[in-house]
Amino acid sequence: MPKGVVSRLSLYLRELQQLLRIGKKTISSSNLGRRLGVTDAQVRKDFAYFGQFGYPGIGYRCKELVTEIRRILGTDRTWPVALIGCGNLGQALLGYRGFGKQGFEVVAAFDVDSETVGRSFEGLTVMHLDTMPRIIEEKEIKLAILAVPAKAANQAVDALVNAGITGILNFAPVTLNLPKTVSVVGVDLAMELEQLAFAVVKQGPK
Amino acid sequence: MPKGVVSRLSLYLRELQQLLRIGKKTISSSNLGRRLGVTDAQVRKDFAYFGQFGYPGIGYRCKELVTEIRRILGTDRTWPVALIGCGNLGQALLGYRGFGKQGFEVVAAFDVDSETVGRSFEGLTVMHLDTMPRIIEEKEIKLAILAVPAKAANQAVDALVNAGITGILNFAPVTLNLPKTVSVVGVDLAMELEQLAFAVVKQGPK
Repeated sequence: MPKGVVSRLSLYLRELQQLLRIGKKTISSSNLGRRLGVTDAQVRKDFAYFGQFGYPGIGYRCKELVTEIRRILGTDRTWPVALIGCGNLGQALLGYRGFGKQGFEVVAAFDVDSETVGRSFEGLTVMHLDTMPRIIEEKEIKLAILAVPAKAANQAVDALVNAGITGILNFAPVTLNLPKTVSVVGVDLAMELEQLAFAVVKQGPK
Repeated sequence: MPKGVVSRLSLYLRELQQLLRIGKKTISSSNLGRRLGVTDAQVRKDFAYFGQFGYPGIGYRCKELVTEIRRILGTDRTWPVALIGCGNLGQALLGYRGFGKQGFEVVAAFDVDSETVGRSFEGLTVMHLDTMPRIIEEKEIKLAILAVPAKAANQAVDALVNAGITGILNFAPVTLNLPKTVSVVGVDLAMELEQLAFAVVKQGPK
């Protein structure tokens, strides 16, 4: 399955949730596609990897398709998540409401800085990284968000992997050294801006 | 050109910058590829879209390739950037050092909240959104980072487009309605976690 398919599932999910909020019950593949800038053929092809979800003459039932996509993505349950690093970015992520809406709950937050450990953000008290292995086991956490400085990243990752984490959302601007059993999604914010700069340059002056 | 190529340019750039920091002067396509989990053929193919950068028997000269990639991406100069929304996430983004390193400088920050306007973060005083068009024109800003709540996003975007912004890095978890002349890169953090959840589920229990 091409990698873009799963990314688009997330986009479809977001769009369907928005449609539900404005009271729409069904949508055609061409309408769904148009809202996201892809063809109706692409929409149908993407879903065909996972099953047959459309109804002839009706299109997709929004609520049903939301349920199906969440099942496929594995977000039909709430994932407990550990946050590593509670600086500016970590604190912002703790306040980020989008996680909860999509089935993720930050249940533990860690840092090494003595001024940060013990402080509370969004009702969560920051614990020292030393306690992380025990907490991760107790709370059966599989996903971690890594929001530490680049130079601290690989050491934190080693500890996370040893503690049994199998998925890492990485905000540190470095390539992580990871065993094959651990999945990683990297969010490099400057990289996103670079992609944007390229698009703007390519487009030329207005 | 396939969309993945430009994303990989950013990855190559990051890796080459890291190599330079540890004193490496040259690297082969197979070594560069291995560090990023792609084949040497892919590396060579990606660069071939833009020119001939390798040397027989040497590989790539790291410093030269960094310069070339930055030229291609348009980050061989510093882009002034406007930040819209100075809540938790906006403040974290203001403190994010990665932007400056890669050629982006947040030169103006805006909000509508009366308690936030007038406050200073990272040496930048938050201005009211009403002043945005004038500042964007004065400072010749083309890129904006949108870190406002979902419900405020499209109104802010209309104002940005009217003010002459041509690229938006969007953190609001909504699809923006944009004219074709404006590029957008969306960062939906919950979506990234979804991609991670899918990878972990697909991989099965350890």
